[in-house]
Amino acid sequence: MNKRGVLTIISGFSGAGKGTLVKELVKKYDYKLSISATTRAPRVGEEHGREYFFLTREEFQSMIEDNRLLEWAEYVGNYYGTPMSYVEEQLALGNHVILEIEIQGALKVKERCPDALLLFVTPPSAKTLEERLVGRGTEDMETINRRLARAVEEADSMKYYDYIIVNDKLELCVEETNAIIESERNRTVRRQDFIQQISEELKVFKEGE
Amino acid sequence: MNKRGVLTIISGFSGAGKGTLVKELVKKYDYKLSISATTRAPRVGEEHGREYFFLTREEFQSMIEDNRLLEWAEYVGNYYGTPMSYVEEQLALGNHVILEIEIQGALKVKERCPDALLLFVTPPSAKTLEERLVGRGTEDMETINRRLARAVEEADSMKYYDYIIVNDKLELCVEETNAIIESERNRTVRRQDFIQQISEELKVFKEGE
Repeated sequence: MNKRGVLTIISGFSGAGKGTLVKELVKKYDYKLSISATTRAPRVGEEHGREYFFLTREEFQSMIEDNRLLEWAEYVGNYYGTPMSYVEEQLALGNHVILEIEIQGALKVKERCPDALLLFVTPPSAKTLEERLVGRGTEDMETINRRLARAVEEADSMKYYDYIIVNDKLELCVEETNAIIESERNRTVRRQDFIQQISEELKVFKEGE
Repeated sequence: MNKRGVLTIISGFSGAGKGTLVKELVKKYDYKLSISATTRAPRVGEEHGREYFFLTREEFQSMIEDNRLLEWAEYVGNYYGTPMSYVEEQLALGNHVILEIEIQGALKVKERCPDALLLFVTPPSAKTLEERLVGRGTEDMETINRRLARAVEEADSMKYYDYIIVNDKLELCVEETNAIIESERNRTVRRQDFIQQISEELKVFKEGE
């Protein structure tokens, strides 16, 4: 019996290293990245079905109506969302699918798919978080302070996640995260088929009493 | 910050290989076995604090009254139970503690300790279960049939467990089980201290806005 993959939602503080973690999981363990749909125009070099599924507003709206999106939101006049079909296809093949989204989207997906796995990525301390954001050198202090202030709000939502992933040493973090997701294949909620099957099989012995 | 160990309850069908699995976890990964208390007399070769804590009825009853047992039951005129102190001590040291008990006891412990981890061990199929019980050669067919009939009832309780551990190849099963328990250290319910700590630390940035 081929085990289904686990739909894994990754959120976390800006500067926690989510992007690198996700990249490593894809490279090292062949995780599949969910591909979003959007109504915004493709940028140079972007390809339909690679960076995004580029849709018209009408196409997107009909996906909303037909309940074919795991979650969606409107942002600066454009729709963004996660089509179910690709995710479902990959899970059925036994592949883990990663969705890197912010907290509100993550909680929407969990509501829709109770067996989605929610991981929250954090640095080992607030001090490390600050150092990483400053160390990037890509943002001014105002932006950094805004990100840190937002982290305070975000911390309140950590409790809704299934696991806390502390990203201290990247390599260790990648392995820990993979071990968590692999282990979750065996969680009772994901082995309903097996439970039903062995329960049926066992009934023979009851009848033979 | 030293992580607490995980209190791991192992139950499963008779013939699923629980005993061997537990032995391997202790040998290979230094898991600690919970030691039960009992009012029955020690048998030749049994030592207080190794096989059991041997107590008088008065001692046992005062442990019940003082709420110092994780679970207890009376069986053929004797008390059997799990003292909290040893378990608590080992968890605090960061060691995983294993408790191999039947389903009713497991559910009692879960009620008392919501962060206890419940693992249900099963062979890959009912056929394998039968073959293993017959293959042991230690029981007559009547006993075997009784065990199989009981397995039918027990299957109804699989849903209360956190994970289903399919014991097909022992070595693989030992590794999977260890990966599950290690991963569970990072489950949100067990990282409350960390969440509180980083939330506190982050507040500095909010105040500095």
